[in-house]
Amino acid sequence: MEGAGTVSWGKLYDYVANMLEQGLGYPRASAAVTAKVLVEADARGHASHGVARIKIYHEEVRDGKNDPTATATVVHETPISLVMRGNRAPGFPTSGTAMEKTIEKARASGVCMTVVRDSCHFGMAGYWAEMAADAGMIGWAFTNTLRASIPTFGRERLLGTNPVCVAIPIGRKPHFMLDMATTTVPLGKIEVAARRDGVIPVGWAVDEKGVDTTDAVRVAEVNRFDKSPFGGQLFLGGATETLGGHKGYGLGLLVELLTAGLSMGTATFDTYQDGCGICHCFQATRMDVFGDPGEIQSHMAEILERVRNSPRAAGQERIYIHGEKEYERREKSIKEGIWLDAATWRRLDEYAGLWGLARLAP
Amino acid sequence: MEGAGTVSWGKLYDYVANMLEQGLGYPRASAAVTAKVLVEADARGHASHGVARIKIYHEEVRDGKNDPTATATVVHETPISLVMRGNRAPGFPTSGTAMEKTIEKARASGVCMTVVRDSCHFGMAGYWAEMAADAGMIGWAFTNTLRASIPTFGRERLLGTNPVCVAIPIGRKPHFMLDMATTTVPLGKIEVAARRDGVIPVGWAVDEKGVDTTDAVRVAEVNRFDKSPFGGQLFLGGATETLGGHKGYGLGLLVELLTAGLSMGTATFDTYQDGCGICHCFQATRMDVFGDPGEIQSHMAEILERVRNSPRAAGQERIYIHGEKEYERREKSIKEGIWLDAATWRRLDEYAGLWGLARLAP
Repeated sequence: MEGAGTVSWGKLYDYVANMLEQGLGYPRASAAVTAKVLVEADARGHASHGVARIKIYHEEVRDGKNDPTATATVVHETPISLVMRGNRAPGFPTSGTAMEKTIEKARASGVCMTVVRDSCHFGMAGYWAEMAADAGMIGWAFTNTLRASIPTFGRERLLGTNPVCVAIPIGRKPHFMLDMATTTVPLGKIEVAARRDGVIPVGWAVDEKGVDTTDAVRVAEVNRFDKSPFGGQLFLGGATETLGGHKGYGLGLLVELLTAGLSMGTATFDTYQDGCGICHCFQATRMDVFGDPGEIQSHMAEILERVRNSPRAAGQERIYIHGEKEYERREKSIKEGIWLDAATWRRLDEYAGLWGLARLAP
Repeated sequence: MEGAGTVSWGKLYDYVANMLEQGLGYPRASAAVTAKVLVEADARGHASHGVARIKIYHEEVRDGKNDPTATATVVHETPISLVMRGNRAPGFPTSGTAMEKTIEKARASGVCMTVVRDSCHFGMAGYWAEMAADAGMIGWAFTNTLRASIPTFGRERLLGTNPVCVAIPIGRKPHFMLDMATTTVPLGKIEVAARRDGVIPVGWAVDEKGVDTTDAVRVAEVNRFDKSPFGGQLFLGGATETLGGHKGYGLGLLVELLTAGLSMGTATFDTYQDGCGICHCFQATRMDVFGDPGEIQSHMAEILERVRNSPRAAGQERIYIHGEKEYERREKSIKEGIWLDAATWRRLDEYAGLWGLARLAP
């Protein structure tokens, strides 16, 4: 694609950190952690959570929903828990601080569960859970998001894509890393389908009557521009109970209760009214509270090895363990550069123009 | 159906407790908790986890996989964690003890996470998570099971139906209760389809080559009698990544790591070799570690209320919150008696005959 190309991790990181600092007024430390998580997403092949999101963060700051100079505060704590208020600060520095404190408390107490209200988008959930796994702990991260998805048998877009993420260290990289939206797919996939042939599979979305639809263009339009409160994405398992849609919906609701519920924050149907209003939940658990962590991790690695090496379905080349694809893509990105598509490159150029910064060179 | 009928909660409970004690040699206290959980499953409409399972527990005792006179022991503990060994004791008294200790530790420390290895089937996961919710805490229960399901892109039956259960008190009954197998459906549904028209929807199972199948008879046969190591049930999202099958598979793997992994026990692909070898994981978290529990629970109830009362899809009568269906069915069962189908009634009669006990009268 014309205009697409690769750029080194360090160069892209410096560029985006500078852009956040110069263009959006992020303090240096906030710009640093935000840039790191965005660049990591692109490096791992999750462009939907990568540097192209500068546009959304810009709009949030412009509209006063996100205050880059604010900082999160602790409102309640015990040796095993923490409640924070984001005060509209960007979700990245807030989540970084929250997870650092969570890990610190877990070091002392064995476990800590943290909830955050009044935050903003925190990027890919995996980054935060992985911080705990890198410290030898089991890490969890949940967040609510913006109105995107439909309760089973409903038609109003009330809940978010509400990801569940768990990272478990297994003695060697990659960690076991499950990082999943509880909806069938992220909105980005529907937008891609809308730009291509306009068709999505049954099970991704329902129309404004709550009925299965394959019309990618309409779904993308309704979701992105909030043209109607009705119609939107489906949770894992689709629209009915036949394929377990009520289970995906249950996971989505669970995330809402663990984030907005426990933190006394705004549920997804009320986010982006005043501030962003996003809520997160994190947990870190030390593995030595269950015995010898080295033995436990080896045992886990063996379990995964048995699954990975089992006979494959007809026509399939590989059975994956969660975290492998992203890890391998990251290794490639570090070696060969991070690939940015033409649209992303254009967007960075556009903001460079807006803020009078030099354009990113490949 | 001829032979089907209702029986009161108390009468069924007394009958089954006596049957476990007289017929299977369960000590009185073990028989009591086991009967209670089985009867509760029937009362809530989950016959697949109800008193008809007497057959399976009988076979486990007969084959030496389950030792009713054994008791679980604690092998490791900290103020916020517990590791137990089931010693082949029935999964019900073991899980009851584990959850009581988990709640006790959470009372003192705010939270406790417990893992159990070398246990047996523990019935419906919801019962154990609900114990914590009844004590005002967030309760979690996970278990691995027997070889039933297929990793995404694989064809060997290596993992279990591996349920995830979370119960959250919201200030009034029913609690929010998500209790879901991570497979699309439980095996029982495939067996029902096999007895009826023999057809299941695409997304429930794959054949021995790992390819989508609608042949309920073959799937039920292979799964129930282990006729081949290949072919079996699919995780939530089906066989491919299109509808998110890799997410359901990830949840199934996560349960395997939290249960067999953390407890140093047997993964599902190795269960039922020597003992049952089943592993569980429980967690209880006090809600006051996040602030005023009454306020938090009211806030959660309001979030759920907004979802419950939202506009419905065309042709739908109600949007459910997880736990409501089972709660309402239980209320009905308490009032009108628990409905047992003819096959269950015949099975109880069969075991009454085997053990020289009086038959259950409606």
